[in-house]
Amino acid sequence: MHRIDLNCDMGESFGLYRLGSDEQMMPHITSANIACGFHAGDPATIRSAVKLALVHGVAIGAHPGLPDLAGFGRRKMEITAQEAYDMTIYQIGAIRAFAESEGGALSHVKPHGALYNMAAKDAALAEAIAEAVYKVDGSLRLYGLSGSELIRAGERIGLTVLNEVFADRAYEEDGSLTPRSIEGAILTSSVRAADQVIRIIKEGQVQTRTGAYIPLKADTVCIHGDTPGATGHAAALREALQDAGIAVQSPGK
Amino acid sequence: MHRIDLNCDMGESFGLYRLGSDEQMMPHITSANIACGFHAGDPATIRSAVKLALVHGVAIGAHPGLPDLAGFGRRKMEITAQEAYDMTIYQIGAIRAFAESEGGALSHVKPHGALYNMAAKDAALAEAIAEAVYKVDGSLRLYGLSGSELIRAGERIGLTVLNEVFADRAYEEDGSLTPRSIEGAILTSSVRAADQVIRIIKEGQVQTRTGAYIPLKADTVCIHGDTPGATGHAAALREALQDAGIAVQSPGK
Amino acid sequence: MHRIDLNCDMGESFGLYRLGSDEQMMPHITSANIACGFHAGDPATIRSAVKLALVHGVAIGAHPGLPDLAGFGRRKMEITAQEAYDMTIYQIGAIRAFAESEGGALSHVKPHGALYNMAAKDAALAEAIAEAVYKVDGSLRLYGLSGSELIRAGERIGLTVLNEVFADRAYEEDGSLTPRSIEGAILTSSVRAADQVIRIIKEGQVQTRTGAYIPLKADTVCIHGDTPGATGHAAALREALQDAGIAVQSPGK
Amino acid sequence: MHRIDLNCDMGESFGLYRLGSDEQMMPHITSANIACGFHAGDPATIRSAVKLALVHGVAIGAHPGLPDLAGFGRRKMEITAQEAYDMTIYQIGAIRAFAESEGGALSHVKPHGALYNMAAKDAALAEAIAEAVYKVDGSLRLYGLSGSELIRAGERIGLTVLNEVFADRAYEEDGSLTPRSIEGAILTSSVRAADQVIRIIKEGQVQTRTGAYIPLKADTVCIHGDTPGATGHAAALREALQDAGIAVQSPGK
Repeated sequence: MHRIDLNCDMGESFGLYRLGSDEQMMPHITSANIACGFHAGDPATIRSAVKLALVHGVAIGAHPGLPDLAGFGRRKMEITAQEAYDMTIYQIGAIRAFAESEGGALSHVKPHGALYNMAAKDAALAEAIAEAVYKVDGSLRLYGLSGSELIRAGERIGLTVLNEVFADRAYEEDGSLTPRSIEGAILTSSVRAADQVIRIIKEGQVQTRTGAYIPLKADTVCIHGDTPGATGHAAALREALQDAGIAVQSPGK
Repeated sequence: MHRIDLNCDMGESFGLYRLGSDEQMMPHITSANIACGFHAGDPATIRSAVKLALVHGVAIGAHPGLPDLAGFGRRKMEITAQEAYDMTIYQIGAIRAFAESEGGALSHVKPHGALYNMAAKDAALAEAIAEAVYKVDGSLRLYGLSGSELIRAGERIGLTVLNEVFADRAYEEDGSLTPRSIEGAILTSSVRAADQVIRIIKEGQVQTRTGAYIPLKADTVCIHGDTPGATGHAAALREALQDAGIAVQSPGK
Repeated sequence: MHRIDLNCDMGESFGLYRLGSDEQMMPHITSANIACGFHAGDPATIRSAVKLALVHGVAIGAHPGLPDLAGFGRRKMEITAQEAYDMTIYQIGAIRAFAESEGGALSHVKPHGALYNMAAKDAALAEAIAEAVYKVDGSLRLYGLSGSELIRAGERIGLTVLNEVFADRAYEEDGSLTPRSIEGAILTSSVRAADQVIRIIKEGQVQTRTGAYIPLKADTVCIHGDTPGATGHAAALREALQDAGIAVQSPGK
Repeated sequence: MHRIDLNCDMGESFGLYRLGSDEQMMPHITSANIACGFHAGDPATIRSAVKLALVHGVAIGAHPGLPDLAGFGRRKMEITAQEAYDMTIYQIGAIRAFAESEGGALSHVKPHGALYNMAAKDAALAEAIAEAVYKVDGSLRLYGLSGSELIRAGERIGLTVLNEVFADRAYEEDGSLTPRSIEGAILTSSVRAADQVIRIIKEGQVQTRTGAYIPLKADTVCIHGDTPGATGHAAALREALQDAGIAVQSPGK
């Protein structure tokens, strides 16, 4: 039987500032990537997100990002592999302490924003991040863009990796996501988004924006929690997956 | 046989900024309190300090502080007990991840600066910090001002506590340190400092600035690493302790 | 003829995080206190708030706060008078540069949150802040709690001061605001709030929570922009003031 | 008669952290580029640096950088032109307020580190920075890499620009500095460094690392204050320049 994980970024509030809708999204997902305080999040927000994940039986993940709160970790920074290693260790540690202090356990790590994109293409950064995860705990799962350098680095070092695909984004022939500036980059229809994911899972391939078919592996699907109608889209996708006979569950289950 | 631990704050550099003399001090101490990035320190600095501690067989500790890099965590902030709890969990987690990723283990927690002073007197803050330590790992040791609220809170929750005394500071009759603004607050003589510590350890009491004797328990002595001649003072103290038949060793040894 | 200024905190967003409703509130007020990046706000947010104030002919003010983004500048910090002086100069300068680069001018300074409360009672802090304002530009107006140390310090140094009162808060007999923890601290009725303000303006006194009358001077009224129905409350207050024959205008007009 | 300005980065300390040797260097230079709190510096440090510059009759400049204290503003960040504009306005404003509050005036602006390098090559960033300077005060001088995009952008908008050259760095044939990773990139000899500067000033050209001669304009020379022997190098260079009949003075003099 096919199975899939649904992951979503969580814990992105900071101080008085609210972002996302953690309480509404949590029932619909199976993995939560919790911001660690570098690009978003703070200790109180981490604790709340961890508790909420435990209530819903959702896998707890660290979502390390670049040290750029003002830019929400979305601006590329020219960091060294050593810096990527160090900031990954630090951020994993923070989330893990909350997970364990609440009686849970850390399950996975998924880099955020610019760090995610950089690690998808830069082998040295990818290796540094994979090593950081492995050094903290070799049983942690590493989530990365399907088929990316980060996935390869994780496999090389011996981590369990989860290839991530996107329900609502079009793909290019090289397996990258169609840039948002290009028309058709976003699949606004819930039905089409679900169809795309089901095909990737069942057939191991995706039809690109240009009509070609390329192989694409899916272990986890990224769900966005900060867009209008996010909860509805998530529920619809989950239902469509289950109707297609695909088990939606956390990787550890 | 009497035994004592010598602890020193470490890992206080930040980015390009250097502070302290970790390499020179580490051979002389038995516990390192490593800054966690809130009042000082950064991921690269933490890693270096952890590795250095491992080389010298020094116990690795988290040194959580207030989120005030500009003030080095020395300015009191009106935080809630919940905020103290959350920031302690976060910071412990960061240091622990580095300790474990380098093949070591976290041994203790000692709050820094204003957080240390606030936790010495404020029972609610003390309890929050002790609970945070306990929730992350009940086998962690908690270092606090000898006889303070923090020590009491640690004992109540079931942690192993280490009463901290100061070699180079005069004491008031209520067991608090003489404020630096009062003459005689600092013992500039290495010999007098060593004498004071040896008496506290052997006799369980200290002679206050006013000449009275008050009971004072010593499990660990705070060594300053950022003053002129710090290395010499540390070496002299360690030698004097050993000459007095007091074993200088990490608490876990 | 009586006249009054209506001021509101503005520009409190940060990066991706949105806070307040600047566009909705700006038409109803006559002075904008713009966050300067220490407790809230960032360069892009400041520019937007300044431009919006200019569009509506609203006086532009700096709203300096403590360096505590995580706590929104609401947690008291034990800073020195010199630190208060320095952080005030810095923050005024940042807002002033935006005001002037957009073709406007800085009109006033009002400390934020904990800095406001500390400066109301601590004469040394108040003097440091007043001096900072004066040194940057002696023609800047200083807004502070009516009758507070900050107002006195501003008058002593030769600044034009504006005594601030609150429409929706009850007063104690010593002229301080009733703490929010006490019942009746908040006047939830728009009508009662307007009545209180009109009486203060016209009679120079306020009826306290306990029923007594105490003198209270009002040059400006603080309007909250971040509460439900804020726009409606502001519009209602402005209309009530005008109906009572009180001119609502910026102090420079 | 030929004339030249000698500029040096100043005010790079932060909180308890000390960096540079402002007091030793200030007597040897004619322009101080003062860090503004984004990549280094804080309000108290700015005030000290401004006062020191006034004592020595040194021109006061803003030295805006990327918001990256941990990386000292040396890591490139993918910022937009609008972000560069906003962060430049903000930082100029902060320094200018200190200059004026101490009875002086802001004289110039020189971007720092990665922002300097990015603005040298990226025309859109250069234009945004030049516009920010111009909008705050059209009489401010803009310092940039000799012949760079920043210089061109400053000239286009109508600012007085100062072409900056380096005494101790080798040049490539395209006018860029030889990367530090290439042998011969640093001129370690004070005599050769002075010779290079004197030739640039007098002849308007420099001999590149490969032996070719290329035109190079020099209005100001960058002096490093954070290297061993910095004071001696600065004094030697200043003497050599004066011996060569070149007046060393601030641009406004």
